Amino acid sequence: MQNPRVLAALQERLDSVPHTPSSYIETLPKAVKRRINALKQLQVRCAHIEAKFYEEVHDLERKYAALYQPLFDKRREFITGDVEPTDAESEWHSENEEEEKLAGDMKNKVVITEKEAATAEEPNPKGIPEFWFTIFRNVDMLSELVQEYDEPILKHLQDIKVKFSDPGQPMSFVLEFHFEPNDYFTNSVLTKTYKMKSEPDKADPFSFEGPEIVDCDGCTIDWKKGKNVTVKTIKKKQKHKGRGTVRTITKQVPNESFFNFFNPLKASGDGESLDEDSEFTLASDFEIGHFFRERIVPRAVLYFTGEAIEDDDNFEEGEEGEEEELEGDEEGEDEDDAEINPKV
Amino acid sequence: MQNPRVLAALQERLDSVPHTPSSYIETLPKAVKRRINALKQLQVRCAHIEAKFYEEVHDLERKYAALYQPLFDKRREFITGDVEPTDAESEWHSENEEEEKLAGDMKNKVVITEKEAATAEEPNPKGIPEFWFTIFRNVDMLSELVQEYDEPILKHLQDIKVKFSDPGQPMSFVLEFHFEPNDYFTNSVLTKTYKMKSEPDKADPFSFEGPEIVDCDGCTIDWKKGKNVTVKTIKKKQKHKGRGTVRTITKQVPNESFFNFFNPLKASGDGESLDEDSEFTLASDFEIGHFFRERIVPRAVLYFTGEAIEDDDNFEEGEEGEEEELEGDEEGEDEDDAEINPKV
Repeated sequence: MQNPRVLAALQERLDSVPHTPSSYIETLPKAVKRRINALKQLQVRCAHIEAKFYEEVHDLERKYAALYQPLFDKRREFITGDVEPTDAESEWHSENEEEEKLAGDMKNKVVITEKEAATAEEPNPKGIPEFWFTIFRNVDMLSELVQEYDEPILKHLQDIKVKFSDPGQPMSFVLEFHFEPNDYFTNSVLTKTYKMKSEPDKADPFSFEGPEIVDCDGCTIDWKKGKNVTVKTIKKKQKHKGRGTVRTITKQVPNESFFNFFNPLKASGDGESLDEDSEFTLASDFEIGHFFRERIVPRAVLYFTGEAIEDDDNFEEGEEGEEEELEGDEEGEDEDDAEINPKV
Repeated sequence: MQNPRVLAALQERLDSVPHTPSSYIETLPKAVKRRINALKQLQVRCAHIEAKFYEEVHDLERKYAALYQPLFDKRREFITGDVEPTDAESEWHSENEEEEKLAGDMKNKVVITEKEAATAEEPNPKGIPEFWFTIFRNVDMLSELVQEYDEPILKHLQDIKVKFSDPGQPMSFVLEFHFEPNDYFTNSVLTKTYKMKSEPDKADPFSFEGPEIVDCDGCTIDWKKGKNVTVKTIKKKQKHKGRGTVRTITKQVPNESFFNFFNPLKASGDGESLDEDSEFTLASDFEIGHFFRERIVPRAVLYFTGEAIEDDDNFEEGEEGEEEELEGDEEGEDEDDAEINPKV
């Protein structure tokens, strides 16, 4: 194998058959490999520039958070009923309404009469009752966490806010869950803080794809007496070893609840690594935090009405479904809103 | 059905059974629906703020493009062989090399001898031959477009650059394909321009998720005589109707080629809508443009070595694969780099 001619012949053969990229690299002359290494060094430098880019994007997000806030404050006021929207503020023409208008007069009249009859005796609750709780019910990722005994508590949830870390501080965001006064705990706000990192990993710089959540912190919930749903009390009979007498003791053990969200595991920062179950739990927690920040808080009403959920579903089913349609329909009726553009 | 009590009872029943979000909304009192409409109005305003955010992100991308450029220029020089990297510039310790070092001395010696033998007679081509062409071969989305007769042309490709539109101009980017002088065409640069839109759709503002590619433009390729691979000449026998004589005519018809990338369809801007085949073709084209800009140009070396392709594969297989692993392995050897963080 040390005969260079044999090597060269082998290289030629490797070169002419289909091959995996990495085996192709192996066949290249040393001088070329050296230049590839130089390209890799440049690539690491690019990853560090990219990290700075994402820090600036984070600054932009902070700036825009301030621009969204007045609208989110208004949203909160409409939801709680503190403020009633004006007629102009609540105008909305949905596609269905347009269709209704196009339908015959006769039908319209019936609809109006029905509506009027309903309005006369219809209750007028304050604001939009159970707004946030309904979102918890609509979003699978959240409803999976919510136990029956969490539900009456979540009905007191009045707002969720995202607060970004101050400029110059380590990158992070806080989810604030604002509750109205309730019988369960005395806190008015429960918080969950997510710490992020925008820095290529030294051991694997090429895997860098932007900021990641790396750790999180909860808060202490000041439960009112007997109201803590995150623990349950179990009774246990205990036999005294010497005397043989039996006594019943009560013991508090952890209980499944959404409110465990505020008492998360800690990511191992001190070299101790988590077991796989814990890693999985933590990964799910990070995903939920990310989802609150990226989707639910910015588009709450669409998760309340379900519009965002339908969109998410459509998106997942995606291209395959579309292809099937292409074969079936000779003449699409309403195809001009097909998703033909990749999101940039 | 006009009896409000019946309606209320019905609503209660609807409320207590599992239901789709939209049917739930139907059951709500008119006053609440009105407030939901107000929330939707606010949501549209949020979408417009988000559009401005993405415009600023685009400005940031432009700023960072200037920071990457010196590194990309260096990359080009190493690839073409115009500049040879210094020893410091080409230092690289891969994981495999570390493993090799850990292996016994004996084996190391053999490896070194082999390498030296190889070096002695090894060719030293200029730069990194066929760098960009190899990327075209490695990336499925591109290799599908490349015909055998495109290959010798693509071997002359020396650089791909992304140029962003100037500030204040409509959002767009240009892909520049730089070729060395060759026997096929006289252009030194072929360009493909992608026009983008960062603006919520009036008819469907909630679908807005950031800038989209909405149209593209190619360029004229000045083919040298007989070298145009995007057309083929076919011979056709023609019979004169009156005289019955037969003559052979030649006709140029379109031919499959990667270089049709520079002669794309136009998105319908003038109300005429494309047929489904054309929409599909255009959507694929936009996806390729996006992929060049987002992945290939910024990380070319990783698509050359295949590292980025493995990553893409891992990413697609994603979570399901991981779960299986969790069940199988009792004690992962090397699990601390498991992807537990959602990308933000």
